[in-house]
Amino acid sequence: MPRYAFRIEYDGRPFAGWQRQDGPDSVQQRLEEALRALEPDVPSIAAAGRTDAGVHATGQVAHADMTKQWSPFRLSEAVNWHLKPAPVAITACARVSDDWHARFSAGERRYTFRIIARRAPLALDAGQAWRVIGPLDVDAMRAGAAHLVGHHDFTTFRASICQAKSPVKTMAEITLEERPYPAGQDVRMHLRARSFLHNQVRSIAGTLERVGAGSWPPDRVRAALKACDRAHCGPVAPPDGLTLTGVGYADDPFGGSR
Amino acid sequence: MPRYAFRIEYDGRPFAGWQRQDGPDSVQQRLEEALRALEPDVPSIAAAGRTDAGVHATGQVAHADMTKQWSPFRLSEAVNWHLKPAPVAITACARVSDDWHARFSAGERRYTFRIIARRAPLALDAGQAWRVIGPLDVDAMRAGAAHLVGHHDFTTFRASICQAKSPVKTMAEITLEERPYPAGQDVRMHLRARSFLHNQVRSIAGTLERVGAGSWPPDRVRAALKACDRAHCGPVAPPDGLTLTGVGYADDPFGGSR
Repeated sequence: MPRYAFRIEYDGRPFAGWQRQDGPDSVQQRLEEALRALEPDVPSIAAAGRTDAGVHATGQVAHADMTKQWSPFRLSEAVNWHLKPAPVAITACARVSDDWHARFSAGERRYTFRIIARRAPLALDAGQAWRVIGPLDVDAMRAGAAHLVGHHDFTTFRASICQAKSPVKTMAEITLEERPYPAGQDVRMHLRARSFLHNQVRSIAGTLERVGAGSWPPDRVRAALKACDRAHCGPVAPPDGLTLTGVGYADDPFGGSR
Repeated sequence: MPRYAFRIEYDGRPFAGWQRQDGPDSVQQRLEEALRALEPDVPSIAAAGRTDAGVHATGQVAHADMTKQWSPFRLSEAVNWHLKPAPVAITACARVSDDWHARFSAGERRYTFRIIARRAPLALDAGQAWRVIGPLDVDAMRAGAAHLVGHHDFTTFRASICQAKSPVKTMAEITLEERPYPAGQDVRMHLRARSFLHNQVRSIAGTLERVGAGSWPPDRVRAALKACDRAHCGPVAPPDGLTLTGVGYADDPFGGSR
């Protein structure tokens, strides 16, 4: 059975998350239904990141085993046709080897968390950013983030329901970018790691927001990390601001198609 | 009666446009209802740009005459409270003199038209950009746009229902910006003029898209302009990509509040 990799974009708002569940609508279910409109017996698909309810993606990756040989172009066009009108789209498709796995072959995940700091509610970006009153001191947030980069026990920044075997992860990057925004600040945190714990990005985002708002000195982030205790975490940020922007593979199936 | 100016942001998708109409929902109606929740007899409000159905704004400006003296901060907070859950927000508010008029005092309008060129449908930016298959040659679009800058008869780029007295307008600026976008191009046209004709920006955007796609040589834009004939216009672009980003005043009421 030929295996195909897909790069997937979605608006997380209408979904209970990536993963198929009994009852609520999921991105996985919509994608499996679109694939099964092409071939009725497509097995369940696997994705690199199991995003939560309301979390978006511009670079989720999944794979599926088909029966027929498809040209990647025709397959992505056909799947996009059957996905309509759900806010889910295939943005790249490639044939991969039978031992390539969207989740287990992934060497890196990239997330962006977007905070818009302004007094007024969001009209155009509602649901696509976390709105806080602000203002945010982005340099203080950078100083707080610096404590989290590297190899650490992230128990403080992990959901109680997290199923990972170990709380030890290596954060390769946390960079903060500030863009102009009408009557406010558009602050984007870019995080990169081999893998993340459940709620890790939202726990970090909520904690760094406290630093930006001036409620936490940057060094308190270090103390919270060292405590290895969930009670020392800042508030967990809402899903609205979170986007899975990319997954890295040693052998990138989408090489030329980005 | 003290007069207040408002800078307004809105998502145009749920509305039949700025202007109050019998029946369909409009931004003007929502804003007037929010003001009348504060003072029941607020007269009808005037705006700088009467945006069409589906057109967005980050910098619309309107004014209202109130009975009471309000602090601009408290007034904008109260209006935003009453606007919920409509995707409309006041992002700045200022007290202005009785002869200041959002529409007649305006010396400049600024619009941005956003085209995303890619094969896949839009999941995250659906309704906030015009998606075309592409690719677009942005330098060719710049060459086409250059013919439209300056003082011209824009009859070719004017809706048949346009009520302006004269088709002669001065286009102060058309600049094209290209940003990276997943699996595509994010092309933004920034247009600036004292005032615009009805459908002028969308007519220009649809025409320049033809140039970017290679269907029109850039010089055909000049020929179309010179023809002064609507039949020579390219297709009119849909409203999704259009945003009123700002209005300029010799005496800017929001000076420090941006």
